[in-house]
Amino acid sequence: MFIIGELINGMYKNVQEAIKNKDKKAIQEIAIAQTKAGSSALDVNCGPASANPKDTMKWLVEAIQEVVDTPLCLDSTRPDVIEAGLSIAKNKTVINSAYADQEKLDTLVPMALKYNSALIGLAMSKKGVPQDKLQRLELAVQIITYCQDNGFPVNNLYLDPIVLPVNVAQSQGQEVLETIREFKILSDPAPKTVVGLSNVSQGTNQRSLINRTFLVMAQGCGLDSAILDPLDNDLMDALIAAELILNKQIYCDSFLNAYRK
Amino acid sequence: MFIIGELINGMYKNVQEAIKNKDKKAIQEIAIAQTKAGSSALDVNCGPASANPKDTMKWLVEAIQEVVDTPLCLDSTRPDVIEAGLSIAKNKTVINSAYADQEKLDTLVPMALKYNSALIGLAMSKKGVPQDKLQRLELAVQIITYCQDNGFPVNNLYLDPIVLPVNVAQSQGQEVLETIREFKILSDPAPKTVVGLSNVSQGTNQRSLINRTFLVMAQGCGLDSAILDPLDNDLMDALIAAELILNKQIYCDSFLNAYRK
Repeated sequence: MFIIGELINGMYKNVQEAIKNKDKKAIQEIAIAQTKAGSSALDVNCGPASANPKDTMKWLVEAIQEVVDTPLCLDSTRPDVIEAGLSIAKNKTVINSAYADQEKLDTLVPMALKYNSALIGLAMSKKGVPQDKLQRLELAVQIITYCQDNGFPVNNLYLDPIVLPVNVAQSQGQEVLETIREFKILSDPAPKTVVGLSNVSQGTNQRSLINRTFLVMAQGCGLDSAILDPLDNDLMDALIAAELILNKQIYCDSFLNAYRK
Repeated sequence: MFIIGELINGMYKNVQEAIKNKDKKAIQEIAIAQTKAGSSALDVNCGPASANPKDTMKWLVEAIQEVVDTPLCLDSTRPDVIEAGLSIAKNKTVINSAYADQEKLDTLVPMALKYNSALIGLAMSKKGVPQDKLQRLELAVQIITYCQDNGFPVNNLYLDPIVLPVNVAQSQGQEVLETIREFKILSDPAPKTVVGLSNVSQGTNQRSLINRTFLVMAQGCGLDSAILDPLDNDLMDALIAAELILNKQIYCDSFLNAYRK
């Protein structure tokens, strides 16, 4: 499982404070903690309050790279902010994210090619969030086709089915799970799949339980990657146990520790 | 989810003791606790040490029926022991279990019809445990065909894919999960599906974690029923959260309590 740690995001108060106070150490501690907990990559998002997001993105990337070699997932709605991060990233990168829109793809797919970056493609469009599996698949096909037509390798594309909160869109859980399964058969080589996990439990009283339950089901459907909180120990235990059951990690009695190492 | 509580089984020391000492109250307490925890049915198994299993089965059924109305899952390798229980059961019953063998089916299918009982059919034969999904499906088809030919309603048949311990048969987890999904499309109306859950974690250091992780994945594949320990609170929380995500229980903030009631 390609685990993308979600905690370096300016929407969180501690990160927002650190950005405001240029407190490099605070960011670095989060980067180290997430890496130690098993993150394959770290999401980097300036948050909505950043006055100069391009500078903030560069500052964050530099701060993180001073202490860890973990790949970075550059997360912004603005392509120029993503490129500010890409331009100085030393290790592997993921662009987060494009969606099924001509203008968006025209900008981000060439950028991903230029920087040899992976790309997250959201199964949504300007019209908003999809309502069912078929809409998600249709949008995914548009993104895949664009990649194929423009020389971007589809196995470097992470398709995100758009996870919705269970308390407001309860019927969408099953749709998303089936979508993950079917994303994998849309092309050969298959695209990868990713979810923004925490969204499933927004506004509920049992966030960790709902997150880990949904994650395990999604893993059972072939999920390749998730943006999540790697410091949630119960979540990571569930993730690791699921990898074990799916035979992606060889059994040993101390499999929980073995995976984290 | 049709939850079958597994705790009234003579292989457990406390139950074995209670049987030996004719301690009705001990059995009744387990029956009440499992019912309160959300069991849809209670497994009843005399265990391997019982000298006179027919009498023991009757004694267990009578003891349980004095305190709860929960349906009973009569569990024995001996058809005469199962029938001893069926003959005095007041509420709904499940026969646990038949497998793909002519003699076994010739005895248990008519018995299920006679007593209007559900039936668990194991995807195994005298030759032993299946090695992959195709063998499981082949054995399941034999059982389904027998039921169809003999007037037993297939939607009253619970097919068990045979769960194996992850520490000795790690590749079988994925096979079992796919089997559950495909059992459901073997006939119309579809058979139901059931697993003996605890087997997946036999001999491991993380039994509850592995049990609940496997259960949630199996639920994602359409599992209808499981024989499990309903007093494992973490397991039940995971089961309930999975039902929520699959939209089988309407969301409310206190969904964990709501389900148990």
